[in-house]
Amino acid sequence: MPPLSRCAIHTITTKSWSLATAVDKYRAAGVGGITVWRQALEGTTAKNAGELIRNAGLRVPALCRGGFFPATDAAGRQAAIDDNRRCIDDAAALGADMVVLVCGAVPGMPLRDARSMITEGIAAVAEQARQANVHLAIEPLHPQYAADRSAVSTMKQARRICEQIDLRADDGAPVVGIACDVYHVWWDDALEAEIAIAGAKGYLHGFHVCDWKVHQTDPLNDRGLMGEGCIDIPGIRAWIDRAGFPGFYEVEVFSSRWWGSDQDAYLAEIVRAYEEKT
Amino acid sequence: MPPLSRCAIHTITTKSWSLATAVDKYRAAGVGGITVWRQALEGTTAKNAGELIRNAGLRVPALCRGGFFPATDAAGRQAAIDDNRRCIDDAAALGADMVVLVCGAVPGMPLRDARSMITEGIAAVAEQARQANVHLAIEPLHPQYAADRSAVSTMKQARRICEQIDLRADDGAPVVGIACDVYHVWWDDALEAEIAIAGAKGYLHGFHVCDWKVHQTDPLNDRGLMGEGCIDIPGIRAWIDRAGFPGFYEVEVFSSRWWGSDQDAYLAEIVRAYEEKT
Repeated sequence: MPPLSRCAIHTITTKSWSLATAVDKYRAAGVGGITVWRQALEGTTAKNAGELIRNAGLRVPALCRGGFFPATDAAGRQAAIDDNRRCIDDAAALGADMVVLVCGAVPGMPLRDARSMITEGIAAVAEQARQANVHLAIEPLHPQYAADRSAVSTMKQARRICEQIDLRADDGAPVVGIACDVYHVWWDDALEAEIAIAGAKGYLHGFHVCDWKVHQTDPLNDRGLMGEGCIDIPGIRAWIDRAGFPGFYEVEVFSSRWWGSDQDAYLAEIVRAYEEKT
Repeated sequence: MPPLSRCAIHTITTKSWSLATAVDKYRAAGVGGITVWRQALEGTTAKNAGELIRNAGLRVPALCRGGFFPATDAAGRQAAIDDNRRCIDDAAALGADMVVLVCGAVPGMPLRDARSMITEGIAAVAEQARQANVHLAIEPLHPQYAADRSAVSTMKQARRICEQIDLRADDGAPVVGIACDVYHVWWDDALEAEIAIAGAKGYLHGFHVCDWKVHQTDPLNDRGLMGEGCIDIPGIRAWIDRAGFPGFYEVEVFSSRWWGSDQDAYLAEIVRAYEEKT
């Protein structure tokens, strides 16, 4: 059973709660971390949010999310870079270890071109991240989102971008790495091998869990809690552990069904699913 | 512009039409082939259907579909093999060039195990197909269907199964090959290379077209006509042509939206989308 101290919950998972409520509830539930989505910072500042979270004794593995680099014109690409710069600033002020990057895609744009723009965009902001002591984590998204959300669909594609940029922090660790989310990559026959490579190269920045329901009513907001779907989450976590991953197991669930339920009972279910099915 | 003589339409595309109606309408529209789904044979026999189609001057690239080999027990796997044997018999009686295989998956079963069962299942029926002069075409399905429809998600996985089985017809051509459907494989960065390999090895048995709508309302039945989505279909067709594919460009569209529309107007749109966007 994974220790609760290594559990972090994404604020989007219980998105009706304010940041302050989420911090209180997560702490009371005994989890060790909270990953903050940017919309949870509305009405406060990243610095104040960071203090609130630190005072509660929680850590912040990540700020979600930057990315969306590809665009059809230079102005759009620059706007994305500017937004990612603000995101890195916020992550530093918040005290987050990393910014998670949902890399983006433009319908009809060749995926290869989109991946080039993604690489260029990350390269443009990586030095700022290095100086801010913030990691950048490329999150490969399931191929069902390749049209408009991420031209990076696999761990291998993410790894190649990390290798191309190859920027190191003072301690020698790569600034740009990967957030591995079981929902997005469970189907990939290269997953075990790529997790091992990412671990060996220091690219394994984040690990997200939820589950793939066999019959989804919605491609975005019908994800399952761990155990509600078909992913062998403990198996993938074993690969992650074997690769030397020291970070949080982050629970990130988009679910209209769970969002519409009693959120205290839901949090209890999250903890149960984390302990028994992760 | 691809010639209409190389266009085949899947009966499922206009599924409210009887087989006789579909044959009449497709012929009148000038297309060269019809791929028959098994449900279109209800109320007739494969032999009679084959005569009906031949008398209309149409060819039959494929019977859809066999497959679904993985099962949790031996009886289930044998039932799948028996069903595939019937499907091969029907394809031979119909005069179809191939049986398309949607290979199957069982929620929670490791995909690797499922692929082993798929390979065993295909191997068990391949000799019968050879003797019947019917090809078998593995159709890799999009990873969104990996949980319950196909543990074969990529051209590369399909190709490896072809290589393992490696059964040849009297003319030396492989019995087991691949049906490449743009909807399922467009996102794969290995697609161009795998099409070339499949062509060189004689595995390119079928080529299906439709389109990936960026915002799908349903993961099964909201596919687009060519041009309605984000796939570079002419680009993929150029790879297919370069690989020496001599067969039909088969239009296979699952769409509640189009099924609910006037089917004669829809057929005209199919022909237009085939000529202008394929």
